[in-house]
Amino acid sequence: MKVTWVFAALVLSCSVSASALDAATTHQQTMQHNLMPLPASVTFQEGRLKIDSSFTIAVTSYSDARLQAAVDRMARRMERRTGIEFAPSLAKDSSKATLVIQCQVAGKEVPALEEDESYSLEVTAQRADLKAETVVGALRGMETLLQLVAGDREGYYLPLAKIADNPRFPWRGLLIDVSRHFQPVEVIKRNLDGMAALKLNVLHWHLSDDQGFRVESLTYPKLHEMGSDGHYYTQNQVREIVLYAQSRGIRVVPEFDVPGHTTSWFVGYPELASAPGPYQIQRRFGVHDGAMDPTREETYKFLDKFLGEMATLFPDAYFHIGGDESNGKQWKSNPKIQAFMESKGLKDKDALQAYFNQRLLKILEKHHKKMIGWDEVLHPDLPKDVIVQSWRDVKYLHATAKQGYNAILSASYYLDDMAPASDYYLADPIPPGSDLTPEQAARILGGEACMWGEEITPEMIDSRIWPRLAAVAERLWSPQTAADVQDMYRRLATVSVRLEDFGLMHNSMPESLLRRLAGTQDPGPLRTLWEVSNPVTLGIRETTQTTPMTHMVDATVPDPVSRREYQAMVDGLLSDAPQLRTYREELAEKLAALRDLPLPMSAIIDRSPILRETEPLVREASNLGEAGLEALSYLSAKLPPPAGWEQAELAMLKEASKPKAGMSLAVVDSIRLLIIAAGQIDQLQISTPEEWKNHVREMTDEDMRKRGHKDQQ
Amino acid sequence: MKVTWVFAALVLSCSVSASALDAATTHQQTMQHNLMPLPASVTFQEGRLKIDSSFTIAVTSYSDARLQAAVDRMARRMERRTGIEFAPSLAKDSSKATLVIQCQVAGKEVPALEEDESYSLEVTAQRADLKAETVVGALRGMETLLQLVAGDREGYYLPLAKIADNPRFPWRGLLIDVSRHFQPVEVIKRNLDGMAALKLNVLHWHLSDDQGFRVESLTYPKLHEMGSDGHYYTQNQVREIVLYAQSRGIRVVPEFDVPGHTTSWFVGYPELASAPGPYQIQRRFGVHDGAMDPTREETYKFLDKFLGEMATLFPDAYFHIGGDESNGKQWKSNPKIQAFMESKGLKDKDALQAYFNQRLLKILEKHHKKMIGWDEVLHPDLPKDVIVQSWRDVKYLHATAKQGYNAILSASYYLDDMAPASDYYLADPIPPGSDLTPEQAARILGGEACMWGEEITPEMIDSRIWPRLAAVAERLWSPQTAADVQDMYRRLATVSVRLEDFGLMHNSMPESLLRRLAGTQDPGPLRTLWEVSNPVTLGIRETTQTTPMTHMVDATVPDPVSRREYQAMVDGLLSDAPQLRTYREELAEKLAALRDLPLPMSAIIDRSPILRETEPLVREASNLGEAGLEALSYLSAKLPPPAGWEQAELAMLKEASKPKAGMSLAVVDSIRLLIIAAGQIDQLQISTPEEWKNHVREMTDEDMRKRGHKDQQ
Repeated sequence: MKVTWVFAALVLSCSVSASALDAATTHQQTMQHNLMPLPASVTFQEGRLKIDSSFTIAVTSYSDARLQAAVDRMARRMERRTGIEFAPSLAKDSSKATLVIQCQVAGKEVPALEEDESYSLEVTAQRADLKAETVVGALRGMETLLQLVAGDREGYYLPLAKIADNPRFPWRGLLIDVSRHFQPVEVIKRNLDGMAALKLNVLHWHLSDDQGFRVESLTYPKLHEMGSDGHYYTQNQVREIVLYAQSRGIRVVPEFDVPGHTTSWFVGYPELASAPGPYQIQRRFGVHDGAMDPTREETYKFLDKFLGEMATLFPDAYFHIGGDESNGKQWKSNPKIQAFMESKGLKDKDALQAYFNQRLLKILEKHHKKMIGWDEVLHPDLPKDVIVQSWRDVKYLHATAKQGYNAILSASYYLDDMAPASDYYLADPIPPGSDLTPEQAARILGGEACMWGEEITPEMIDSRIWPRLAAVAERLWSPQTAADVQDMYRRLATVSVRLEDFGLMHNSMPESLLRRLAGTQDPGPLRTLWEVSNPVTLGIRETTQTTPMTHMVDATVPDPVSRREYQAMVDGLLSDAPQLRTYREELAEKLAALRDLPLPMSAIIDRSPILRETEPLVREASNLGEAGLEALSYLSAKLPPPAGWEQAELAMLKEASKPKAGMSLAVVDSIRLLIIAAGQIDQLQISTPEEWKNHVREMTDEDMRKRGHKDQQ
Repeated sequence: MKVTWVFAALVLSCSVSASALDAATTHQQTMQHNLMPLPASVTFQEGRLKIDSSFTIAVTSYSDARLQAAVDRMARRMERRTGIEFAPSLAKDSSKATLVIQCQVAGKEVPALEEDESYSLEVTAQRADLKAETVVGALRGMETLLQLVAGDREGYYLPLAKIADNPRFPWRGLLIDVSRHFQPVEVIKRNLDGMAALKLNVLHWHLSDDQGFRVESLTYPKLHEMGSDGHYYTQNQVREIVLYAQSRGIRVVPEFDVPGHTTSWFVGYPELASAPGPYQIQRRFGVHDGAMDPTREETYKFLDKFLGEMATLFPDAYFHIGGDESNGKQWKSNPKIQAFMESKGLKDKDALQAYFNQRLLKILEKHHKKMIGWDEVLHPDLPKDVIVQSWRDVKYLHATAKQGYNAILSASYYLDDMAPASDYYLADPIPPGSDLTPEQAARILGGEACMWGEEITPEMIDSRIWPRLAAVAERLWSPQTAADVQDMYRRLATVSVRLEDFGLMHNSMPESLLRRLAGTQDPGPLRTLWEVSNPVTLGIRETTQTTPMTHMVDATVPDPVSRREYQAMVDGLLSDAPQLRTYREELAEKLAALRDLPLPMSAIIDRSPILRETEPLVREASNLGEAGLEALSYLSAKLPPPAGWEQAELAMLKEASKPKAGMSLAVVDSIRLLIIAAGQIDQLQISTPEEWKNHVREMTDEDMRKRGHKDQQ
């Protein structure tokens, strides 16, 4: 609704401008909490349960090693957070404990789709009670408890609260592709910690692709020996990670993508391919022709033995067989395969792949695994307990559910799109007003964010995953009604800092890489450029597996705060018409820093030629700053700009919007709004604040939509 | 020499003030390089060897897998540094290669004390030639080559240079204590990378102590099962680390400290102790009574089997048996042990320990290992190939050498002292003017920096080791004449940033921990306090193994830049008498920020009670700021302060010097100098700049000595 937008924008301003935020915080302190994902139900009361060195924890009813280890981890985290040392062991007498954890059963032996993850948490002035049916439910509740910890002049405490919580969707995952770039064990572990903190429950481990085969195979050792450049997980490491995930209530679903995306298999076993070898590990990204030969019985014997081995290594009930982007070229050019298709009446590559999948399904069934695959595996011959993962478009998700299959959504959650957290947050697997029947809706099991591996290294993977993944986590756990973008961003800022407890480097990587890029020089100007830069979506940079990933773009982070800061400042300024004073100085200062970038950046580039590629971006940032300042001065003086100014500036913006050196400028849209506002000053007789506001609303409505604002009713 | 001090101080100022540094850099650019440790001999010429995508590397003469892997690592590091992708494999035709590496032999099968580490490097406009006798020599040369990489407007290049290099001492080590706090594999690995970059060659791995037994033993599994809280290295991990070190030319010397410091052994095997059990893992630090029973044959049988197992796991020729701080209390109160001593004529605990060591020596000899132990093992009965590690005082080092034993120095290199890098740098194992004969001097094999584990966590260990360890590395590798503290600090700043390439977190940890301490608040004021704070030396804080190490002190770093910055500003100001204008404004700004700390810090503390303990420190920092500003205003006005002012301020300083919350203020000495200068204005008739300068020199001479300045001839 248009009428409410101005106020919404003002609230947004408050939430991102530091000084304004402080004021808002003091005002709203009592109502704000930092819970993420939002629980299904939560109410707060005045009062507190004190946290001091007498804080003790008791476990009643069911207990086991997993629960006790989790309680210990929670206690240590609370200690590190508060600096207070607690009693090292559990309280014997639960009636005197500060926190009493009560769960009924172990739950599934290995974390499973059917796991009961619900819990309730009640904090009174006397004690906190965490109740859950299963250990995993208790784990979820402990994360909520940790997020409740607050502090003030009197010390640390838990606010009095009553929470009843359970997830909206049972499948809430993160795919990590370790094939394009390998990720060491510690990277996986710290991300599992982060996932557990956000109540995510599936690690989808993309373990093989054209660019690398990443698991030790005892049955077929040439897979990892020749297909991995020496970068693979030993079976011990796999078990270590599976156990690490299990202890956090996270399933590990392995993916071995077949029949395409298999070049790395063929390096050691060229006989699996549909065209003669030899093969090399593929360094380029994209879709490649290599595909398994689905017509040879040896292929299935190989897969049977290999999957049998992997089935024991990965205890989860599901096994991901990929199945995406098989282009059929090798099949087409192989006369034997063509003859096979003809003899079997398989009319095209899709039919041949369906035949392959049928055979594969039998093998998986033999090893007691259920199948999950990408969109393309969907075929009427498949049994209904197959899960289809929708990656191409959300429309496939609903179509799948309507055909009676279980489905999970990934198309909307590609972290490589480098999109704002709000985009992922507002992408609902079952949006309000969906035409799915309740039965069909129930087949939509949840979703998975995807972290594809083309342009990530162990150093910066965290910054591509976090904190944005937390927004996906909330979408998949919390009620559909949780959709307040500003409040999400407010809580996200806290979550982001807390995630650093696990050693996640999303916040510390940029400064480190900027320091190294600047060498011995002050990275100040580099930081200014960094602040307004967003890495471009996957596929725009020209990279291969061997491209050094220590460029400026690798230091930038998706969804930089500057985007919302500029939005808030420009919205605030225009909403303050006709005075136009709000944020004017802050905005002018920021814009001047952009305008003045070329000189100091040039000095840095002179000593660090790796930064030379940023020169065009620096120029555009400077142009943006200058245009913004000019717009500001026309707005301040309430003087119309000269004829042609607006057109010239908008043309400049068009150029400035193009990616350069793998980056785009995150503040272009806000500058556009300023320019349009300045250009239209003289088109209206302005006499009252009301008229100004109406004018601004009208003028910016389209722009607002483009920027993804939602009316805040 | 006094006369030169003022100029030295000015040079120092230039090297730490950013603006002054820039000027100095431009001027001296052609002579400055960032090599660390300084090579034995280096000369530069005008000109360059360009680094671009045509850069190729050839290996001639001897080659093996270790060398090739090292060349590959070097190429990848150069790629990440420059952003340029090179050819993935070695050049076939060495006559066309940009870099030609030529070494003659593999060198020792496992890195050894006797290894030839020398190399030469010649860069001409046509190509770079790296020559070494051994692979390890080539590794050392590659690190030098990487440090030579420079960039300007025309791109990356190597300056033309001629380097001949070899180490002054053959034993250049770092002790890491993983017993008091466990350090995961990746922590050890990234520190090995850093060590290799600084040409260090020994990891002394302190693997057992009262607080933890950290290696899996197949022979006596209760050692790690009951003595480690589950935090130990599997034998596979040990092998992995030893191999990782070997491939970088680093020896791994394990230490299993006996007969004292052994509580963690006794948890699983109480029969080894000299007093009846049961035993628990010791959580407190310091010297404990638990000691092995040296009178039972079973003790030696156990050690024989255990050390036999470890001897195969650790290939190094040396084995460290600890031997320190055995207080003899358990021996004294055990009648059987007393009777044994009487029967053998062992008159005191030292004699009994010498008996124990003799027995131990036989066991080590049986397993083909040479013994190394701490100071206390020194005894005339020991053979001369034992190495004594001097930890109590440097005087023991020379005494040991005079008695004909090999010795290494650690007393001067305790990183836990949290002392400035310059202290370690200037501590020479064989100082100029030493009375050792050449033969005695040759017995001093080098030294080891010690990183004891009481107050370190995996998160902040890097900040306690780096960059200060680089100063020790230079002391042990470079010629004795390398002693220019300012230039050391200048190069150290570059080294420090480059070390981040390995994932070392010494520069990124503080910001991350400050963010978490401040929570959602702007950590700005916290950063101001952080800048002037130094963690106190080990032993002042009251900590145990279970103390949470996420307090403010854990975020601070030893030898903060502020100490030298304040020194340089105050020195510069006073040297600019009678104008007293140099750095006056910068200094006033810094001092005002200190003075004004209490209010913003109070706001942060209100939300983060963990910071409440810093309140006394904040008050002292504020007092320092205020006193400094007052001193500045008297100096500026050239007016004497009121009677009693100087005494009152110096009394305040005394209070401000005391550690608070585990921290001390690094700028106290500089403020003291300001106060003394202000207090003495009226004691001298000042007419000429020369008189002023003489006065300042006289006044501050004692102070300068206290601050560890050296005359710079």
